Amino acid sequence: MIVLYDNLSSGNAYKVRLMLHKRGLPYTRIEMDIDAGATRRPDFLALNPDGRVPLLVLDDGTKLPESNAILAYLAKGTDLLPENAADFAQVLRWLFWEQYSHEPNIATLRYWITHKVEMTAYRKLAIEDKRARGVAALGVMETHLTANDFFAAGRFTIADIALYAYTHVAEEGGGFDLAPYPAIRAWLARVAVQPRHIPITA
Amino acid sequence: MIVLYDNLSSGNAYKVRLMLHKRGLPYTRIEMDIDAGATRRPDFLALNPDGRVPLLVLDDGTKLPESNAILAYLAKGTDLLPENAADFAQVLRWLFWEQYSHEPNIATLRYWITHKVEMTAYRKLAIEDKRARGVAALGVMETHLTANDFFAAGRFTIADIALYAYTHVAEEGGGFDLAPYPAIRAWLARVAVQPRHIPITA
Repeated sequence: MIVLYDNLSSGNAYKVRLMLHKRGLPYTRIEMDIDAGATRRPDFLALNPDGRVPLLVLDDGTKLPESNAILAYLAKGTDLLPENAADFAQVLRWLFWEQYSHEPNIATLRYWITHKVEMTAYRKLAIEDKRARGVAALGVMETHLTANDFFAAGRFTIADIALYAYTHVAEEGGGFDLAPYPAIRAWLARVAVQPRHIPITA
Repeated sequence: MIVLYDNLSSGNAYKVRLMLHKRGLPYTRIEMDIDAGATRRPDFLALNPDGRVPLLVLDDGTKLPESNAILAYLAKGTDLLPENAADFAQVLRWLFWEQYSHEPNIATLRYWITHKVEMTAYRKLAIEDKRARGVAALGVMETHLTANDFFAAGRFTIADIALYAYTHVAEEGGGFDLAPYPAIRAWLARVAVQPRHIPITA
């Protein structure tokens, strides 16, 4: 059976739980205590040298880290990852954008605040940088969603799953208010009523 | 004809030039003066709201940003992006890892230093953080390449193209010395002798 090294507070891990549920795939969940350093211990680093969850371990022992690569793997051959090159490219475009321009700002601030990490001099200055970049990312999303119901291919895909994960909890991240983004809020509601949706805490 | 909004100093843009050359696809190149703010002007933001190069504009007017999404688009259906799900997943895993754990550290430091950006209080502290994370990323690569000739699928793929782009110029980034990484250096040499290789300046 598939094994998911997981953490219930992680939006990246939630993407994978949500996707596994949509596919109806059974799996064993191993909750990792990130705050206690569980993902930085040698036994876990031997599985994922990057020291992060989520990590999927397949039946044949293959180890697959990186939440959006896991989404693409689990979606391949389904409607959630289009096969035609143009739509496939746009789905990937938003997956990479999420990991580069959205997650390092919105998710990292949420992590620092909700996990009460030490506020070093670097982090104190980084908060302002990340807040500005997070607001810019929400602006890019709002513009796109004003003209589109979903991020790519004219329908619900893993691009929406990836961007939903940390956007719907952005207000936990200190300073991200979704009130000025009506198109984002309408899209969040559309994602939440897709078949076989589950909340981040499930 | 395909249009590439490009910058010759950008490793992300180089990935696309290298891939277009490998495919033998003709294209029109538009050099963007990043230092002069060319990618932040309204006319370019209308093409890519993220304000970054590379941006590919296809014959039908489709706009595709995100270097690794462009690689996947151009590689789809070729040996450079495996079709079987397991190898496909590992290629994507390394593409996402490159953009999350490698590029923001090694490429950003190179950019700050070679483009002589203003050293704000935030950037001065961020340099130490990025240098440590860059060294950690090189360690992950060295471990992987000690046991593997290429990053995924047992052969040269777009995962190698993506990681080559900024690794082979890491020493321009202030403080990254590749001497302690013999497996990385051997892999760089293997990549550089693949068919239809071109240097970053071409």
